[in-house]
Amino acid sequence: MILNDTIVALATPSGAGAVAIIRISGNKAIEIANAVFRSVRNKDLTKQKTHTIHLGHIVDPSTSSGQVKILDQVLVSIFKNPNSYTGEDVIEISCHGSVFIQQQIIQLLLRKGCRMAQAGEFTLRSFLNGKMDLSQAEAVADLINSDNEASHQIAMQQMRGGFSNEIAKLREELLNFASLIELELDFAEEDVEFADRTQFKELLNRIEFVLKRLIDSFAVGNVIKNGIPVAIVGEPNVGKSTLLNALLNEERAIVSDVAGTTRDTIEDELTIGGIGFRFIDTAGIRDTKDVVENIGIQKTFEKLEKAQIVISLPNFSKGGAFETGKIVSEIELLKNKYPQKTIIVVINKMDLLDESQISNLKSQISNLLFISAKKNIGIEELKNTLLSLVNTGALRNNETIVTNTRHYDALLKALEEIQKVRFGLESGLSSDLMAIDIRQALYYFGEITGQVSNDELLGNIFANFCIGK
Amino acid sequence: MILNDTIVALATPSGAGAVAIIRISGNKAIEIANAVFRSVRNKDLTKQKTHTIHLGHIVDPSTSSGQVKILDQVLVSIFKNPNSYTGEDVIEISCHGSVFIQQQIIQLLLRKGCRMAQAGEFTLRSFLNGKMDLSQAEAVADLINSDNEASHQIAMQQMRGGFSNEIAKLREELLNFASLIELELDFAEEDVEFADRTQFKELLNRIEFVLKRLIDSFAVGNVIKNGIPVAIVGEPNVGKSTLLNALLNEERAIVSDVAGTTRDTIEDELTIGGIGFRFIDTAGIRDTKDVVENIGIQKTFEKLEKAQIVISLPNFSKGGAFETGKIVSEIELLKNKYPQKTIIVVINKMDLLDESQISNLKSQISNLLFISAKKNIGIEELKNTLLSLVNTGALRNNETIVTNTRHYDALLKALEEIQKVRFGLESGLSSDLMAIDIRQALYYFGEITGQVSNDELLGNIFANFCIGK
Repeated sequence: MILNDTIVALATPSGAGAVAIIRISGNKAIEIANAVFRSVRNKDLTKQKTHTIHLGHIVDPSTSSGQVKILDQVLVSIFKNPNSYTGEDVIEISCHGSVFIQQQIIQLLLRKGCRMAQAGEFTLRSFLNGKMDLSQAEAVADLINSDNEASHQIAMQQMRGGFSNEIAKLREELLNFASLIELELDFAEEDVEFADRTQFKELLNRIEFVLKRLIDSFAVGNVIKNGIPVAIVGEPNVGKSTLLNALLNEERAIVSDVAGTTRDTIEDELTIGGIGFRFIDTAGIRDTKDVVENIGIQKTFEKLEKAQIVISLPNFSKGGAFETGKIVSEIELLKNKYPQKTIIVVINKMDLLDESQISNLKSQISNLLFISAKKNIGIEELKNTLLSLVNTGALRNNETIVTNTRHYDALLKALEEIQKVRFGLESGLSSDLMAIDIRQALYYFGEITGQVSNDELLGNIFANFCIGK
Repeated sequence: MILNDTIVALATPSGAGAVAIIRISGNKAIEIANAVFRSVRNKDLTKQKTHTIHLGHIVDPSTSSGQVKILDQVLVSIFKNPNSYTGEDVIEISCHGSVFIQQQIIQLLLRKGCRMAQAGEFTLRSFLNGKMDLSQAEAVADLINSDNEASHQIAMQQMRGGFSNEIAKLREELLNFASLIELELDFAEEDVEFADRTQFKELLNRIEFVLKRLIDSFAVGNVIKNGIPVAIVGEPNVGKSTLLNALLNEERAIVSDVAGTTRDTIEDELTIGGIGFRFIDTAGIRDTKDVVENIGIQKTFEKLEKAQIVISLPNFSKGGAFETGKIVSEIELLKNKYPQKTIIVVINKMDLLDESQISNLKSQISNLLFISAKKNIGIEELKNTLLSLVNTGALRNNETIVTNTRHYDALLKALEEIQKVRFGLESGLSSDLMAIDIRQALYYFGEITGQVSNDELLGNIFANFCIGK
């Protein structure tokens, strides 16, 4: 990784718009920008204060025709090391949002000594220059990708250091004990104990408690980040599509306010109370009975496997006959097949049932929901039910939630090491062996915040960023 | 048109990216931004200097839960009236480029008293506040849409006032004479001439000369703005697609440097020497002879009609026989059919011909080009030929070029009025009648720069802008 060169990239989404931002970072950023900038007030960029904006033109002073070519009228923002995103000197050029102009200016900057930035390289530099730790850097990408209230809130919290602080505090306390225990090794002959074993055990308990809470939060965090998968199961004529439309329609009005959100991507996604729900298409089910009773069509099963919540719409009107027994046995089969999943049984077309049929069903199946998707009856209740199934307690209480698989893995490994240390402590393991386990736990803590890192790890993390961030 | 409210819009292209810019303009811009901004250094935005940047968070102080909700970490740029794009107080919020965040911040600003900006409204305000004239405002849209060197250069020149200056100068001179002639009306009984008729005639000649040059430049300007339409005519097996690929391939390498330029849009477009060429698909021609000889397939003709340049690829190898006479008569028919169009006759697969066949063709058809699209022979020569057919003299000499149909129309009408004035002058028309024609010419001049405008005209112009500009 070369850090002493100057990088450039388009920071705004690609395509034409009113304005585009070209970002330059590195020790030559201001010098290079100054070489292609003609201020309307003859200002020298190298002599301007940080956090100031300057109007002028980007010019190519070295065209083949010998003429100075004006590329665009721009605003140039200056951020001086260390008061910038990357911690280096940063220039942001705000130019007209034509693709041609963006390309011309970037190519000019490349000719003048910049290098094209790699994906996430600005944030990587920010991390390497100590402006943020690794989990905060990862939160930047999460923040950009967040598309609902909950995932946005978690990413914001992580970016602002909520997660890192919790880990860093535990790591520091553990590091103190590690130092004391390693000090004991130097005085091994004298058989002294610098580290208070009772306090140490108390600390290990505390760490274990926090680790377990964080690990548990991943179940919530992961679905919040990716959207909670919900499968709607039912035969086609049962009103599955109508239900999906009824659920989505209300949302579409809001979504239409969002620039650039196409219908395709929201077609199966719905935000209820700030939580993203991802509806899984189970169109593959041609006959619900076949699936439930015969453990049939593999494809549908795979989709059902991915769902966390299953909305089952029994077909009570099939063939005209109303059979409560059949419905009950279908639901039982589904529940037996998927004991881990939350199953919501929804009776659609409730207007086709009389009161005795409704009370008959209610008496045999608990927690039934009666709706009419077509007439938009009971849809709000269904939404509230979906929302109530999500454990948003941690979210509400502003607790740290783990959403990142890498962090989850590191936490699991750290927990394992901490449990080893505690076992060692309880079984009177020698300090030197215990120190190894502690060091290993510290290593995993450090992996999360980036105090321990390597090029491969960083490469993997930042490859998922967009260019220009 | 309401001008005393504060408008907001996303200024960067829609979609997710590293950074997005939300722009606010109006007399409450700074106040509104300050209400939702928490500076990391506790700065009050209303007390900051113009052209400065401030780090902090956008917060929603009035959530239903009563908690202050942090929406994003942002940079806020301040531009104070009149030193801004619109001439009003302007705030630019640089936030993380998530669609969700963009939407949240814009919705918050709307709740705090901003109004959603209409297409082009920032530039409209710039015009109405005297920051730029109408032709400059129109050039902003052209600049954003420019996708090659030539159209970019013309738009830049127009935006920097090249066109307006030329018109404004003539208008001012004409206005002087108009005043003098109108002054004569006040002294009608005394039969005095304040306006020197010889000087006036000389001015009219000068104006006429400039108007004609500008009007003539539209032929060049219009094709440069939209790309020069080129039809490649020939039977499918003649190598038409191979030629198009050979022409495009070299360009694709350069184009691939451009972010966001998809292959689809460039498939039929090619920039040669900074000039855009738009290749028109004539795949409809199944048998060239049918088209040329029988004045056949209407669709193909329509496409040919739109072309300014026609590249004709005769099929000399059809059936194995080599008939010079047939090729010559085909070309003659094409030339007779389209006397207005420039026709380039290209013999592809030149490697299949022997020297005597080549010299035979050369002797009978002038300006023949011999190429092999497959072997990439003669492609550069063809490109140079295409480029040489474009009148780039005015472009090279930095002359004003008219690209806008509205300006073209106004210039034509102004010319008509000027010619009327001259005719009146020569035929001894009374001052009062002549004054009317002069006023009418001045009106059309004013229409170009916007000294004369109305809501409908402005509405039409700015409707073509993107929102946020």
